[in-house]
Amino acid sequence: MLHVGIIGASGYTGVELARILAGHPEIRLTAATSRQYAGKALAEVFPNLRKRVDIVCENLSVEELLDRADFFFAAVPHKTAMDIVPRLLDAGKKVVDLSADYRLHDAATYEAWYQPHSSPHLLAEAVYGLPELYRDRIRTARLTANPGCYPTSVILALAPLLRHGLIDPATLIIDSKSGTSGAGRAASVGTLFCEVTDGFKPYKVGGSHRHIPEIEQELSLAAGQPVTVSFTPHLLPISRGILSTIYATLTEQGRDADLHALYESTYDAEPFVRVLPAGTPPATQHVRGSNCCDLALQKDSRTGRLIVMSAIDNIVKGASGQAVQNMNLMNGFPETTGLLGAPFFP
Amino acid sequence: MLHVGIIGASGYTGVELARILAGHPEIRLTAATSRQYAGKALAEVFPNLRKRVDIVCENLSVEELLDRADFFFAAVPHKTAMDIVPRLLDAGKKVVDLSADYRLHDAATYEAWYQPHSSPHLLAEAVYGLPELYRDRIRTARLTANPGCYPTSVILALAPLLRHGLIDPATLIIDSKSGTSGAGRAASVGTLFCEVTDGFKPYKVGGSHRHIPEIEQELSLAAGQPVTVSFTPHLLPISRGILSTIYATLTEQGRDADLHALYESTYDAEPFVRVLPAGTPPATQHVRGSNCCDLALQKDSRTGRLIVMSAIDNIVKGASGQAVQNMNLMNGFPETTGLLGAPFFP
Amino acid sequence: MLHVGIIGASGYTGVELARILAGHPEIRLTAATSRQYAGKALAEVFPNLRKRVDIVCENLSVEELLDRADFFFAAVPHKTAMDIVPRLLDAGKKVVDLSADYRLHDAATYEAWYQPHSSPHLLAEAVYGLPELYRDRIRTARLTANPGCYPTSVILALAPLLRHGLIDPATLIIDSKSGTSGAGRAASVGTLFCEVTDGFKPYKVGGSHRHIPEIEQELSLAAGQPVTVSFTPHLLPISRGILSTIYATLTEQGRDADLHALYESTYDAEPFVRVLPAGTPPATQHVRGSNCCDLALQKDSRTGRLIVMSAIDNIVKGASGQAVQNMNLMNGFPETTGLLGAPFFP
Amino acid sequence: MLHVGIIGASGYTGVELARILAGHPEIRLTAATSRQYAGKALAEVFPNLRKRVDIVCENLSVEELLDRADFFFAAVPHKTAMDIVPRLLDAGKKVVDLSADYRLHDAATYEAWYQPHSSPHLLAEAVYGLPELYRDRIRTARLTANPGCYPTSVILALAPLLRHGLIDPATLIIDSKSGTSGAGRAASVGTLFCEVTDGFKPYKVGGSHRHIPEIEQELSLAAGQPVTVSFTPHLLPISRGILSTIYATLTEQGRDADLHALYESTYDAEPFVRVLPAGTPPATQHVRGSNCCDLALQKDSRTGRLIVMSAIDNIVKGASGQAVQNMNLMNGFPETTGLLGAPFFP
Repeated sequence: MLHVGIIGASGYTGVELARILAGHPEIRLTAATSRQYAGKALAEVFPNLRKRVDIVCENLSVEELLDRADFFFAAVPHKTAMDIVPRLLDAGKKVVDLSADYRLHDAATYEAWYQPHSSPHLLAEAVYGLPELYRDRIRTARLTANPGCYPTSVILALAPLLRHGLIDPATLIIDSKSGTSGAGRAASVGTLFCEVTDGFKPYKVGGSHRHIPEIEQELSLAAGQPVTVSFTPHLLPISRGILSTIYATLTEQGRDADLHALYESTYDAEPFVRVLPAGTPPATQHVRGSNCCDLALQKDSRTGRLIVMSAIDNIVKGASGQAVQNMNLMNGFPETTGLLGAPFFP
Repeated sequence: MLHVGIIGASGYTGVELARILAGHPEIRLTAATSRQYAGKALAEVFPNLRKRVDIVCENLSVEELLDRADFFFAAVPHKTAMDIVPRLLDAGKKVVDLSADYRLHDAATYEAWYQPHSSPHLLAEAVYGLPELYRDRIRTARLTANPGCYPTSVILALAPLLRHGLIDPATLIIDSKSGTSGAGRAASVGTLFCEVTDGFKPYKVGGSHRHIPEIEQELSLAAGQPVTVSFTPHLLPISRGILSTIYATLTEQGRDADLHALYESTYDAEPFVRVLPAGTPPATQHVRGSNCCDLALQKDSRTGRLIVMSAIDNIVKGASGQAVQNMNLMNGFPETTGLLGAPFFP
Repeated sequence: MLHVGIIGASGYTGVELARILAGHPEIRLTAATSRQYAGKALAEVFPNLRKRVDIVCENLSVEELLDRADFFFAAVPHKTAMDIVPRLLDAGKKVVDLSADYRLHDAATYEAWYQPHSSPHLLAEAVYGLPELYRDRIRTARLTANPGCYPTSVILALAPLLRHGLIDPATLIIDSKSGTSGAGRAASVGTLFCEVTDGFKPYKVGGSHRHIPEIEQELSLAAGQPVTVSFTPHLLPISRGILSTIYATLTEQGRDADLHALYESTYDAEPFVRVLPAGTPPATQHVRGSNCCDLALQKDSRTGRLIVMSAIDNIVKGASGQAVQNMNLMNGFPETTGLLGAPFFP
Repeated sequence: MLHVGIIGASGYTGVELARILAGHPEIRLTAATSRQYAGKALAEVFPNLRKRVDIVCENLSVEELLDRADFFFAAVPHKTAMDIVPRLLDAGKKVVDLSADYRLHDAATYEAWYQPHSSPHLLAEAVYGLPELYRDRIRTARLTANPGCYPTSVILALAPLLRHGLIDPATLIIDSKSGTSGAGRAASVGTLFCEVTDGFKPYKVGGSHRHIPEIEQELSLAAGQPVTVSFTPHLLPISRGILSTIYATLTEQGRDADLHALYESTYDAEPFVRVLPAGTPPATQHVRGSNCCDLALQKDSRTGRLIVMSAIDNIVKGASGQAVQNMNLMNGFPETTGLLGAPFFP
């Protein structure tokens, strides 16, 4: 029985980690930290967890944490994560970090988009935690950098095309839409119910969202050449779900290829990636509450472009579910343990 | 491995049965009927089930069904159910019927609210499938009548009070609010997105909803005297969830009693009933996607009344989850098998 | 052209006042105060107002306000209102106060539910601003206390019955449901989109909501005897709208009366009250964005009770629209000026 | 007083026409047709209209209609419209047709995307009813073809850029998202509340939506050369609103130009087009219920692309509001009559 701690349990990724782990037969949740709710049962903060999760939030130092668990999820904001993660590793613990702090391999890129990095030596070691791409390396990792929600939806959608030279990497336009849980649980006027409901809008338009370098890193690796993308996120009046609609000009090879067959063969054995039949677009409501990523492709013969569509639940495959998938790999558990629940619809 | 069939798999209770059963280790889904979608994979009708449920919908006669499974969920409308259920029982099958056809013990009451009953002899045998009240009888039942969604939320909320004479049964006012999935999946202008969203309204006001006789039957049994209730259902702009707010005048005994302690002791050992701390009202978003029923009580000293509040997910504890709970009991499986997933929040 | 100021323009009642006043031909908006947004155009705070409202928010003292307008809407929280209103009146201004500070006639009641009152002498003078009940007195008022949103929905629903002794005032149970805009625009975890959407819950259960004394004051006046009510508010996942479902036991006189005819005759000439045909319940989506109050009645012969249903838009008839209706009366404008827009549906 | 008829009053564009016209001082609604609801008051079909609109739906032949009004809105599906419109014109009536039947100037294009056209001679005469582009021609038109909802959002967003050669017309990618009212009021499983809420998905992907030829016609005219676009519509879980996010590669001239200033000068005098300040993206909730179109531009220096964003209320500026704007122009009324209401938020 692996003893597991959640650092930063009182956000939406924290409660989702606790929900998933409550159904995981191989682990025991032995620590959950929260400064704000220290002393309160996590199920008091999130009443959905009553009678299912009995852990109490604590305000624990890193030193105190070391005695409490062998494996940690760091579900704290970037910058806070890099204050904690190296000390956990030094003490021999394994970590899935859900922040952005160890996702970028290049310290200069990190510093250009975020701030100075205090443990750049770990960037080379950290494995980018997208199991469909890096499964083997995750198995032996001490530190897995859990991907961002938008990047997960985009990289799974595009990697096979770029690897095979089927689209022109200079033409990538990514129009992504995310549910509001992606904005977190901090009190803020902009995410009040009345501001979001019955509405829709873009934000961080024009190449400023911090998921861009992460997307470009992984797409460049897949393409074998530097890739720059247009990326526009939007805020959906739903809790959970990301849908990315991606446009790319097909190469000559791509125009002739059976792309659907390529995707089916690429992802056939993947338990969490589902390639939809031709003509069936994905929908966030069909992945809700699950670790699934649904993909579809559609050629547009009028323009020579390909449209790739991708749907995930941003707090499951886009965060906590993928984190548990990585934990499973890092500890030799079957990869799908605790994660096979079908999406709930309606 | 129990072979299980779902009769009427293409409605919202059908897809939810399939979702829950996909995670049930003791059964195998071997039949799923649908006239409309015969020949289509159920996962084509409900894409959330892809890679998790591989059954194909069929238009099967009762005779054909007999070879296909040993246990059946009848998820068809009332009247249709009573055409099928007796023949399944005659062939030695066990059945959970999700319709209203076998919930009422009294044929005359059934006929007053519905239509003539074609198998009234089974009304005495059928067990009302509320495990928290009738667990032992369900264990040995051939036919369990799965409760209605509103009645589940109401009966669990009131039975302890009525059993102990703590409220005046002549004063019961039940104001219930249901998510739109309760209206089913038939195409209809009244349940179009644009008609329901950003809105709220009562319906079947004034004592005409067919769940009334079911509520009154069970409350009368608990009270040991005939009970008549005011019941008003409302339509909520949410998919899943029922919240019932119930008003009753306390008896003298009730005014003095520690009602919270009574509820805690009554439901402490129940895996799916959660009594909330004083001052914490239930919320549908905290039971979403789960088999839980959350209860809270609040005395109003200004009026001498008690307010009892109850929240369930109408398609889980109010339908398909409770049906699986009953299946578990009827087959000697641990009662919670496949049902312990915590609610999804947010 | 009446010069009008909005004190507290940056909340949801403030923006709605500005929206309504933008279409009012008899007034000019000459002041809009906001501490937080001083110096910003109101249309920058609320982009819906662009090209329609060009006023800039200012942080103005009461003294500065006196030169800026002749008529004021006080859209600030209770307690803040009573610091401002007397000084406006002393300077000869007329005021509609949207807070609770002048709604209760009895200072002791106010102090029991709120805090000490600093201008209790004005309680006798202030007119309760429900035009359908107090139209003539509002016409000559200096200070109109704009009713609360819940009380508006309840009092219009019950006053005719109580006046005529048709229901037993000891049996009133009011189950009200409100859209989230009623909670205001302050940043708060409890009203974040993800906490409210796809959910429903009661709050302030058991006789603790501060609208209770206001409801009881007006119902007592209508009944000619003290009335105590059970009142339970709930939070709806919609922006705008209140629906109150009210239960009362009919008196013998009430059981025999044609209540629908009574309501039709009572409200026939009212431009904003609409009595629905028998069997048609009101719906918040049918009053959205308008100053209408929709009413319906349904007897329940099984229980001898009456169910009265009432729907309003909480920020129009429940706040800013009613405030403008009062302003019209207080200034001799046609009562409906600026307010006749039909509700938006869908 | 112009006598006006609505042909096809019982859909969502019909009820919105009736709502807007109820506040229009220059017209009188004298006919409203509906086969399904003939004999019912329109306010019975749409209870929001009670006490504001008193017309009764009738099933009228074209001949009967001729005596009833001088001006008509044809709010019927394409193909049905071209059966009616020529006969109205022949009788000397003026018409705004809200269907697609007279939007395309080229009969062959119409027939390629729709079906054979029965009155192709009118295609040359019909004016494309986007007042910001064709105001003068609309003033003298007998037949105005009211633009589609998506095209309205797109053409207002792109016309100035294309006219001035600031973007490369071969690079246009239009990612549009629409509220569900755009799908109409016909009963259908796909637009049931439970299928749409808390979800999001693309549809008609890959160049198959019928608004494409209309968009391309107008963009080609603006560009002075044939334009082909990628266009992907999506379904939003909101009632009203379209947001289009449009990507284009800037020409050298475009990279250097002050595009914001161009837009401000282009649209400054337009009462319904609002150019947002740099860095402020539009939001559907800020145009809700109004005839406004909000526009914003953002250069992406990393990619050399421009992102243009456009928000409208699809049933106002995207349908009924624009139709009334056209009626105003065609009859010499001030263009904004009945349409100046500010958007309602929240």
